[in-house]
Amino acid sequence: MPVRDMSVMCAVCSGRRARPNLNLLLLLILLLGPHTVEGVWPLPQAITSSTERYPLTPQAFCFSYGRRSAARFINNPPISLYILWLSTGLETFSQLVYQDDFGSYFVNKTKIEDFPRFQFRGILLDTSRHYLPVKTILKSLDAMAYNKFNVFHWHIVDDPSFPYQSHTFPDLSSKGAFHPMTHIYTQSDVRRVISYARLRGIRVLPEFDSPGHTKSWGKGQSDLLTPCYKGGIPSGTFGPVNPALPSTYQFMERLFKEVSAVFPDSYIHLGGDEVDLSCWRSNPYVRAFMQKMGFGVDFAKLEAFYMEKVVNITSFFNKTSIVWQDVFDYHERVMVEVWKEGCYLCEVRRVAKAGLRVILASPWYLDQPGPTHNWARYYTVWPLAFKGTEEQKSLVIGGEVCMWGEYVDATNLAPRLWPRASAAAERLWSNEKQTSSVDKAFPRLQDFRCILLRRGIQAEPLYVGHCKHEYHSV
Amino acid sequence: MPVRDMSVMCAVCSGRRARPNLNLLLLLILLLGPHTVEGVWPLPQAITSSTERYPLTPQAFCFSYGRRSAARFINNPPISLYILWLSTGLETFSQLVYQDDFGSYFVNKTKIEDFPRFQFRGILLDTSRHYLPVKTILKSLDAMAYNKFNVFHWHIVDDPSFPYQSHTFPDLSSKGAFHPMTHIYTQSDVRRVISYARLRGIRVLPEFDSPGHTKSWGKGQSDLLTPCYKGGIPSGTFGPVNPALPSTYQFMERLFKEVSAVFPDSYIHLGGDEVDLSCWRSNPYVRAFMQKMGFGVDFAKLEAFYMEKVVNITSFFNKTSIVWQDVFDYHERVMVEVWKEGCYLCEVRRVAKAGLRVILASPWYLDQPGPTHNWARYYTVWPLAFKGTEEQKSLVIGGEVCMWGEYVDATNLAPRLWPRASAAAERLWSNEKQTSSVDKAFPRLQDFRCILLRRGIQAEPLYVGHCKHEYHSV
Repeated sequence: MPVRDMSVMCAVCSGRRARPNLNLLLLLILLLGPHTVEGVWPLPQAITSSTERYPLTPQAFCFSYGRRSAARFINNPPISLYILWLSTGLETFSQLVYQDDFGSYFVNKTKIEDFPRFQFRGILLDTSRHYLPVKTILKSLDAMAYNKFNVFHWHIVDDPSFPYQSHTFPDLSSKGAFHPMTHIYTQSDVRRVISYARLRGIRVLPEFDSPGHTKSWGKGQSDLLTPCYKGGIPSGTFGPVNPALPSTYQFMERLFKEVSAVFPDSYIHLGGDEVDLSCWRSNPYVRAFMQKMGFGVDFAKLEAFYMEKVVNITSFFNKTSIVWQDVFDYHERVMVEVWKEGCYLCEVRRVAKAGLRVILASPWYLDQPGPTHNWARYYTVWPLAFKGTEEQKSLVIGGEVCMWGEYVDATNLAPRLWPRASAAAERLWSNEKQTSSVDKAFPRLQDFRCILLRRGIQAEPLYVGHCKHEYHSV
Repeated sequence: MPVRDMSVMCAVCSGRRARPNLNLLLLLILLLGPHTVEGVWPLPQAITSSTERYPLTPQAFCFSYGRRSAARFINNPPISLYILWLSTGLETFSQLVYQDDFGSYFVNKTKIEDFPRFQFRGILLDTSRHYLPVKTILKSLDAMAYNKFNVFHWHIVDDPSFPYQSHTFPDLSSKGAFHPMTHIYTQSDVRRVISYARLRGIRVLPEFDSPGHTKSWGKGQSDLLTPCYKGGIPSGTFGPVNPALPSTYQFMERLFKEVSAVFPDSYIHLGGDEVDLSCWRSNPYVRAFMQKMGFGVDFAKLEAFYMEKVVNITSFFNKTSIVWQDVFDYHERVMVEVWKEGCYLCEVRRVAKAGLRVILASPWYLDQPGPTHNWARYYTVWPLAFKGTEEQKSLVIGGEVCMWGEYVDATNLAPRLWPRASAAAERLWSNEKQTSSVDKAFPRLQDFRCILLRRGIQAEPLYVGHCKHEYHSV
C-alpha cells in the first residue's frame, strides 16, 4: 500500500496519538532481505533493526484492533499472520516502509520501543504579520505529525492584523484584519483546524497576546487601547491595552469566554511580551490609576496587575495560562515560555527554581533564514544542561519552534520550516545521548527529508543530492 | 480581461521582445479616474502617468497589428478606439492594469518610453547539484519574463550529475545523472525549454563547464578525466578533463557539435573555473605532455592550452564563447563573466581594459539565504562605477543572477529567487539615477511582488503585509 495512505490510516485508527507518554512496542517478524533504511526520524528511544525484510502487499494488508488495546497488522493472511503491537507509532511504522526498484513495498524486521523525551513539542505559526490560508495551516499540521510535534501554537492575532472572526466582537476582524472577507479565520475555519490537528495527535494552543502587540485590536474596539499623550494632550496614537479602565476587563472576560469555548485545549497563551511602557507613562489617567492602586511609578506592577486579571479570567474558564518570559516574575499559576537570546538556560533555570513549568523557544527561532547547514544549530541544543535538581529539570516540559511572520507567508513557510524544524523535533523527542552527533544524524535526516517530499511537504534540501520523488513545484 | 491572459498574449504577438534595444512607446489616451498604481517594475526609462483612468472591458478588448509594425490596442470599438503603439512592452502594459473593488479592470493614462540599460540580463540555474523538473524551469522562465530578464544561463551539468541526455554520448546521462530515467533532460525537454523561453524573449545560454567541474562526465566517458597519482601509482581518483590526450579533443568536438545544434543561441558558456591543478601535477603523463609542449611547470599555460582548443571548437560552430573570470587572461575572442567576491569592479575594469566584453555576476549570488531585507544589497549595485573610458564601459554588456544548486531545488527555488532577483532586474534594465533610492523602490517592489503572486510565482514577502491574491500553497 502507498505509504501516504498508511499515515492517514494511522490518524484514523489511533486516537491515542495525543497521549505520547504511553510506551510503544513495534514488533515485526519478517522475512529475509538485503536492505536497511537509514532509520526513523525522530529517532526512537530503542530501535533494533536487521536486514531481514518482509514484503507488504497492498491487496493483502490491513490494520485491525487486537488484544492489549493494540493494533494488529495483518499481511497476506492466507500465508502468514504478522502482528504489530502499538499504541502510537504508525508514523514510525510508515517510515520503515521502502520500495524496491520494481515498486514493491518492504519493511525490515525491526523492534522499537518508544516514548517522547518531552511532553510539549510545539510549533508557533504567526497569522497576524502575514495571513496564512487555512490550507497552508493544514499542510503544516501534516508535516508536524510526520515529525511528532504535538502542539500547534497559533499566534493568531498581533499588531498588524486581527484575522480571528469573533462572534462576540465581529468588528475585531471586520476592521482589524488585512481584509474583512478574504484574510480572516471564520469559526468554521478554526473548527476545521482544531479537528484536523486532533486527528493527528496535535493540540491547538491559541495565543491572544496582550497588553502589548494589540494595535489591530484597537481598530474594532474603541477605548480598549491606551491613548498616548504628548505635551499634555492626546497625540492621536495608541499604546498597549488600557489597564486603568474597568471596561477593559469586561471586554477581556467576554473575549476569553468565547475563545475558551472555541479552543477546547486546556492551555491558553496570554502573551505578555514586549510591553511598551512609554505610552502608559504619558497618560495622566493611567498615572492617576497607579497612584490610586498604590503602584507609585512602578509600571512593572501595573503590568503584573493587568496580567493577573487576565490570568484570573482564563483560570475561571479552566485554562492553564502560558506567558512569555517577560512577565513570569509576578505569577504562580502560569507556565513560562523562554524566548530571549543570550543565556537562555540561565532563564530556564531561574523559572524552574521558582517552581514554574518552562517551555524553551530561544534556540529555535526559525523565521530568519540562516546560513546553510544551520540545521545543526537547531540540533545541538541541550535544554537540560543547567545546574538544577531532578525535580527542577522535570519542570522543563518541552520546547517550541517559533516561525514569526515578518518575512514569512505561504510562499516560503514550508521550505523555511522543513527540515530545519525536524532538527528540533528530534531534540524534543529522542534520547539526547543517542542523538548528540550531527554527522550521524545527517544521512538519516536527508532520508527523512525525502520522505517529507514524497508526502508533498516542500522541505528544502540539506545539500547536493536528489530524492527518488522530487518536489514538482507546479 | 484577466491580466494573466494579457501577458500570454504579449508573448504570442510580440516576437520582438528578444531584441530589447528597440525603443518602446506606450501611449494611452484615457478617461477620468482617481487611482494610480505604484508603478512598473523594472522602472521604464521614462514614464508619465496621471490619475485619468480608462476601463478595460474583457468583452470588448483585443490586440491587433497596426501600422509602424506596432500593435494596436482596441477597446470598446463601438464607442471609442484607443491605440497603443509598441514594439515590445506588453509586460509593461499588463502591470499598469488594476482592478477596482468590483472586479472591473482599469488602466490610467500613461506615456512610457523604454529600453534596457544592459543588453544581457541573465539568471543562472544549476541543474547538476539538484535536478530541477522541467515544469520548475518553465515557471522560472515565466517569472524571468515578468522581470524582463532575457538570458537563461543553463548550468546544466557539473560534478554531481550530468542530466543532459546526449544522443551522441548517451552514457553521459545514463551513468552520470542522479537517475538515468527520472533525473534527465531529454532532447525533447531541451527543445521545450528553448521554445518556451524564445516566446518570452529569453535566450537559452547552455554551459558545459570544463576542464574542472566534470566528475559526473567521467562516469559515462572513460579516459576523459585525468587519473590522479599518489606515490607514483594511480590513486583511483580522477581530476579535471585530461588535456594531454588527443581523444579528449575528439570527444569535445563531437559533444560541442551536438550541443551547438541543440542550443541555437549564438553564445555558449565554457566554464573554465576552479580547476584543481594538483591532480594534473601528480600525473606523469600530463607532466610529460607539458614538457613536450614547452609549458615547463606552468599549469596556467596548460589550462590556457586546453581552453584555447575548446574555444576553437565552438568558434568553428559559430558560437561566441563565454568563460568565467578564472581563465580570461589567455584569450581574445571570449566574453568574460566576473563572479568572484572582493573588488569585483577592479576585475570588471581589468577585463574591459583588455578590450573584452564583461558580464557581472559577483554581487548577485542569490543561492545562499541572507538576512532579511537583503534585497537592497542586490539593488544598490553600480556596475559601471569604475574608472574607465566610455568605450570600456560599453564593454560591460550586462549582469547575471547566479542561483547555484548546493542548497536549492524545486522546493525553495522560487521564494529564494523572487523578489530578490527583481532587484537585480531593475538594476540591469533601468536608469541608474532614477533608481538609486531603496526607499523609493520599496513600495513599488512590494506591489510588483503581489503581481508575481497573482500570476502564480511563489515570490516571498519583503515585510509585514498582505496581497489581495495570496499564494495558496496547495
